[in-house]
Amino acid sequence: MTDRIFDTPEAAEAAFYEAFSRIDADLMTAVWGDGDTTLCIHPGGGLLRGKAAVMQSWREIFSGSEPPLIEHRFIDGFATDGLTVRLVEERIRPRNKPPEAANRVLATNVYKRESGSWRLVEHHASLPLVDRGSDAAGKERQLH
Amino acid sequence: MTDRIFDTPEAAEAAFYEAFSRIDADLMTAVWGDGDTTLCIHPGGGLLRGKAAVMQSWREIFSGSEPPLIEHRFIDGFATDGLTVRLVEERIRPRNKPPEAANRVLATNVYKRESGSWRLVEHHASLPLVDRGSDAAGKERQLH
Repeated sequence: MTDRIFDTPEAAEAAFYEAFSRIDADLMTAVWGDGDTTLCIHPGGGLLRGKAAVMQSWREIFSGSEPPLIEHRFIDGFATDGLTVRLVEERIRPRNKPPEAANRVLATNVYKRESGSWRLVEHHASLPLVDRGSDAAGKERQLH
Repeated sequence: MTDRIFDTPEAAEAAFYEAFSRIDADLMTAVWGDGDTTLCIHPGGGLLRGKAAVMQSWREIFSGSEPPLIEHRFIDGFATDGLTVRLVEERIRPRNKPPEAANRVLATNVYKRESGSWRLVEHHASLPLVDRGSDAAGKERQLH
């Protein structure tokens, strides 16, 4: 599974959310880059560094969980030949909950081309404490 | 001030934290990219998009504030010719508070080369709700 090739950052991103929504650890492993510079910050969480730590966290998230319903929407990003940054809005909820029960998460996903495939090398997710509704743009109260 | 040139992502980052710690809106304006694809997520905040919204938020943060004490530490990152991603740990506190009172923030800073200068184009900051101390690496409890 880990030799799966993702020809574009978009393909890697689709596989990331597919793995998350299917709680598929093998596909999740294939999506992430193999280097030590593999960075993951779950909402409200600290920094996980290195593929082993990152994958352990996903196995714990998947363990005993029902597959969640996840919608994701690309907001904006930056791309060069070998590095792409994509800011995504995620809406995550249990399958037995209505859409309004979804947690809205903002995630910066960084993809790098490594050995002929795009891989996810950083996922930085955060929960906006103030949610002004479905439009992620616009001014919201700041905590800085 | 906005025609200031930053030869490297590191120079732009140093200016960003200098502007923040001096509450210097002119320098902050110079650091940020001018495009509509200018993205800022303050800790616990929603998405701010476009330079006008981003700079308005910084002016509000700076307004009536005393300059804070900010330490920042580069953790890891990714770089190509025209795009650089830097994960940074920030420690922010009022000048009259001891170091242990600092808020620890994890920030993904994205820099892009535009018209001969590196500019900050995305700042995604979050507060780890669980802080295991000064080492930002390692496994921490997840909220996903």
